[in-house]
Amino acid sequence: MSNPSSQNEAPLDKRRLRMWIRMLRTTRFVEARLREFLRDRYKSTLPRFDVMAALFRAEDGLKMSALSKQLLVSNGNVTGIVDRLVEDRLVVRVIVENDRRAMLVRLSPKGRELFSKMAAEHEAIISDLFSEMDNNDLDLLVDVFSRLKEIEEPSS
Amino acid sequence: MSNPSSQNEAPLDKRRLRMWIRMLRTTRFVEARLREFLRDRYKSTLPRFDVMAALFRAEDGLKMSALSKQLLVSNGNVTGIVDRLVEDRLVVRVIVENDRRAMLVRLSPKGRELFSKMAAEHEAIISDLFSEMDNNDLDLLVDVFSRLKEIEEPSS
Repeated sequence: MSNPSSQNEAPLDKRRLRMWIRMLRTTRFVEARLREFLRDRYKSTLPRFDVMAALFRAEDGLKMSALSKQLLVSNGNVTGIVDRLVEDRLVVRVIVENDRRAMLVRLSPKGRELFSKMAAEHEAIISDLFSEMDNNDLDLLVDVFSRLKEIEEPSS
Repeated sequence: MSNPSSQNEAPLDKRRLRMWIRMLRTTRFVEARLREFLRDRYKSTLPRFDVMAALFRAEDGLKMSALSKQLLVSNGNVTGIVDRLVEDRLVVRVIVENDRRAMLVRLSPKGRELFSKMAAEHEAIISDLFSEMDNNDLDLLVDVFSRLKEIEEPSS
């Protein structure tokens, strides 16, 4: 029954479950920190940050449908979030040439500038929280996660 | 600037950020699967499962305050969730001897039986999603996560 190569004699199923619970706890903890940071420093939220991040990557803008698909944290009320960002002049709506019915949303220059600042601080917080992870650990994690392909790219 | 021992030349900050995003995506994906499973098989939810899991571990029951602290997924509306579980006869409220003001909540025998079933299926789903992780990977992950102590047990 036991696997001599492992330091832990629990069955694989149980070990995977424990690892998942640990990963979930860590994720929750990091998210709570990020939520605090966004609220205190920018009166912002994770879903709003997430929308801005997706728009920052897509310099030419995105259709609302494409934006929804890219969101990491939660679809939430994407329309409501975008409406607020437009009100705050961080996002603009633009009409696509040759297809007047298609509307894109895009960060304004002010939005890009603000997001760059937020993203740099966000990165510093993450790097600090994960400061115990060196290049070696990261190589190992990238290797493990890359074998979870079916999780990240479901075949269905 | 570059670290010859690493296969990846990106700065450590950026690599940690990428790893975090990957971990967050994986967590979201697994949660979505679990949410589907709980809804389709048990007309249940993640916060409800989480409450039942905490009560399953505490056989003698928990005060509401202790229950809230243990929750993994989200505090949500713990009172509301417990009220529903009581209505469904899965949870009972009991008065503590010697301290009549203290009230505990505890799974009923029916609740324990149901949760055992749910937990076994939940474990099988997790093990399947993480089937690429063998004992070796798990040893590595446990080692990495255990060095993130300050994340799981904040010093403040």
